[in-house]
Amino acid sequence: MAEKITPRATDYSQWYIDVVLQSRLADYSPVKGCMVIRPRGYALWEKMRERLDAMFKETGHQNAYFPMLIPESFLHKEAEHVAGFSPELAVVTHGGGEKLEEPLVLRPTSETIIWAMYKKWIQSWRDLPLLINQWANVVRWEKRTRLFLRTTEFLWQEGHTAHATAAEAQEETLRMLMVYKKFAEEFMALPVLAGVKTDSEKFAGAVETYAIEGLMQDRRALQAGTSHNLGQNFAKAFDVTFQTKEGGLDHVWATSWGVSTRLVGALIMAHSDDRGLVLPPALAPTQVALVPIFTNKNKTEVLAYTGKLAARLRQVHTVELFDDDQSSPGWKFAEVELAGFPVRIEVGPRDMEKGQVMLVRRDTLEKLPVPEKEAEARVTSLLEDIQASLFHRALAFRKEHTHRVDDYAAFKSLMDGDGGFAESGWCGQASCELRIKDETKATIRVLPLGRESPEGRLCVCCGAQAKEIAVFAKAY
Amino acid sequence: MAEKITPRATDYSQWYIDVVLQSRLADYSPVKGCMVIRPRGYALWEKMRERLDAMFKETGHQNAYFPMLIPESFLHKEAEHVAGFSPELAVVTHGGGEKLEEPLVLRPTSETIIWAMYKKWIQSWRDLPLLINQWANVVRWEKRTRLFLRTTEFLWQEGHTAHATAAEAQEETLRMLMVYKKFAEEFMALPVLAGVKTDSEKFAGAVETYAIEGLMQDRRALQAGTSHNLGQNFAKAFDVTFQTKEGGLDHVWATSWGVSTRLVGALIMAHSDDRGLVLPPALAPTQVALVPIFTNKNKTEVLAYTGKLAARLRQVHTVELFDDDQSSPGWKFAEVELAGFPVRIEVGPRDMEKGQVMLVRRDTLEKLPVPEKEAEARVTSLLEDIQASLFHRALAFRKEHTHRVDDYAAFKSLMDGDGGFAESGWCGQASCELRIKDETKATIRVLPLGRESPEGRLCVCCGAQAKEIAVFAKAY
Repeated sequence: MAEKITPRATDYSQWYIDVVLQSRLADYSPVKGCMVIRPRGYALWEKMRERLDAMFKETGHQNAYFPMLIPESFLHKEAEHVAGFSPELAVVTHGGGEKLEEPLVLRPTSETIIWAMYKKWIQSWRDLPLLINQWANVVRWEKRTRLFLRTTEFLWQEGHTAHATAAEAQEETLRMLMVYKKFAEEFMALPVLAGVKTDSEKFAGAVETYAIEGLMQDRRALQAGTSHNLGQNFAKAFDVTFQTKEGGLDHVWATSWGVSTRLVGALIMAHSDDRGLVLPPALAPTQVALVPIFTNKNKTEVLAYTGKLAARLRQVHTVELFDDDQSSPGWKFAEVELAGFPVRIEVGPRDMEKGQVMLVRRDTLEKLPVPEKEAEARVTSLLEDIQASLFHRALAFRKEHTHRVDDYAAFKSLMDGDGGFAESGWCGQASCELRIKDETKATIRVLPLGRESPEGRLCVCCGAQAKEIAVFAKAY
Repeated sequence: MAEKITPRATDYSQWYIDVVLQSRLADYSPVKGCMVIRPRGYALWEKMRERLDAMFKETGHQNAYFPMLIPESFLHKEAEHVAGFSPELAVVTHGGGEKLEEPLVLRPTSETIIWAMYKKWIQSWRDLPLLINQWANVVRWEKRTRLFLRTTEFLWQEGHTAHATAAEAQEETLRMLMVYKKFAEEFMALPVLAGVKTDSEKFAGAVETYAIEGLMQDRRALQAGTSHNLGQNFAKAFDVTFQTKEGGLDHVWATSWGVSTRLVGALIMAHSDDRGLVLPPALAPTQVALVPIFTNKNKTEVLAYTGKLAARLRQVHTVELFDDDQSSPGWKFAEVELAGFPVRIEVGPRDMEKGQVMLVRRDTLEKLPVPEKEAEARVTSLLEDIQASLFHRALAFRKEHTHRVDDYAAFKSLMDGDGGFAESGWCGQASCELRIKDETKATIRVLPLGRESPEGRLCVCCGAQAKEIAVFAKAY
């Protein structure tokens, strides 16, 4: 806690960097655009991975691992795919001291290498569906990077599934979109809009891309996960056919879907404040910070007391005990707030006399004296309360900053000013989408699922009859 | 189960490949030297990772993630390190369509990038010890590769720790060696020798390298994990100093240690047989294969019965139910043996009448009829028995194939013939070590910890007074 965090109101962007660096979630590395994920940041990612992995397994998926090195020619097999990813490739040209016959690219995503293998593994409808996920690092050469949100190398998971019918692939695409939505809302406490992307924003090689989008505290949107219906594009590119139940031969239908360490950035930007991290209890690596308050005189008694309390709490919660005598209670409180422990417990000699402990919730900083005997139970209910209220706070924030605007002047002044989500009529033309982006920097985040009818609404840009209700925002 | 597995006696090397491919642990990829780890193989690695990760956390380590791309110049900062790894590097020369100013290598190991970061993070004795582990992929350009055992890209963990004193670094080096030994013996059921490597076999940049070595069924040794005391070599190379408690300034002391997906290969070679995988229950992704035996007539009753049994067993064990009617019981038995389920349970109409189920243990193929009501408990004790007997079988095998040989003619004929471990006197001269390697292909695997005194023993090669008792073997 040597340095001060820039307040959000002063410079949101600098606030974000200050929080990430000072809370020691991550650090810049000597390699341009690559970050180091420090233990505290990695513990958060581990928690996320653990939850997501359980959800993938519950929906029938298995993990596997495919090579990171992909022959450059593979990317050229799917025309849109190579066009989309070529500008971002890192290329290995030498190995073992010799120039390679064919350059290898570092995977920017693994559709091509995976479909080359699926060709070997899929012959019959009996081999389908094939439901595989991979946890891996990927590399995309980015010009402008930002800790967690956009880095040259990042960690992610990518699901790649193969199906016998178009309907099954579509069902899987939406199933995984809903898994992501559930994860974002129940674990990250981040309300998200789920919907389909327009053609201009879809994945290179997909028939349709679906995404979940959250609203950050600076009222910019952040894409937090995508799920692609790839149709038969990759099966055709890699000639993956199967014998149908009826004895025919067909190309396989595919999906892919992913989330990345970007979610750590989303989590920070959704909930944290000017004192540092605010973490939802469901993902906080440690739920409770126990801070004994003592002097040299009473140190022995206080530490004996809090040591026992910590042992008791650990039966139920994850607890870090701040019992060193190198730093003051005030320093420890600031450190605990910076690191985002959902609950802090303070215990000093006066609390001991009264048989109480002081609970401090990180989200509101509210203090709550409770009987020492009830500590476990009160922490449990407090953690539940924090999880729920973070979600509701974020939901209220999103509602407050979602506007129904069909008038272009109002739309422009919204995007120039306060920002947020605009639910607007759209004629469906790419030209209007592009003009809006050029003039306001806002893009269509999604055409929301289960959306209201566009009937009677007009395109916010050209005034023609609206074909869609689109959600626009400036985005990360 | 379309193809036949080559028997070990016919061709051990082909047997290994047959087992890996046919049990679908892994597959060759289109990129030379890189393998695809298929779901069954990855599930094994996941189990290993889970156990090891818990052991690392119990010993105070935290996970983090460092960039895979390392500036080439970093490797040159430690002279031995670059000499050791240069021949194996893969080099990225282009990114984002442009030639890079400085080439980046794919990490063959991460000492250099990590110590560049430790320089930023370590100032004082208060920052020590720093105990970090990373789960990651690494790339070493190998000329001759072999599924799991030696691949161009592989998955591993690498611990990197920083300490205030030489003694603490040495203690950590041995602590992690013992963690590996415990893991190998208790979970993999693989007895290992722990010891120190000779100078010719030590890690490039280490002061001392310790290793655990197991004996495979073809009586060749396999190095299953290494732990390095790096002294102050990397701290000096990256100028990492700290303020000591006494107010002085010193370079930091370091260790690094790792195990990799190679362990999956070791597991196969230690226990499996001509029918396929034999897996220790502690690491088997699924412990029980439940195979109902039914005809069209009694299908409904048998499946209802085994469905209930499966649900009951799942309270205690992991269970896969083979209830499809696409394949015969015989086909299923072979598949279950190939995949290495530790216990198979067969239930047919006659078993149902008798109120019994048939347990079949994978290691001995012994059949054991037990009352249906006792199934859970009997499976529990059977799994414990299998875990213990795999270890004892491997230990007996190692004892049988460990020879005390100080006579060079006998040594040569041992290495020409049956192989195994030779515990021999060694004068300590690299020249003798090299001559033995040239003439017999056997290398010193370790100088075992807690080794007997070399007093009175002679060097197996030159006949001079022995300075060490060395364990020699031909190795993977």
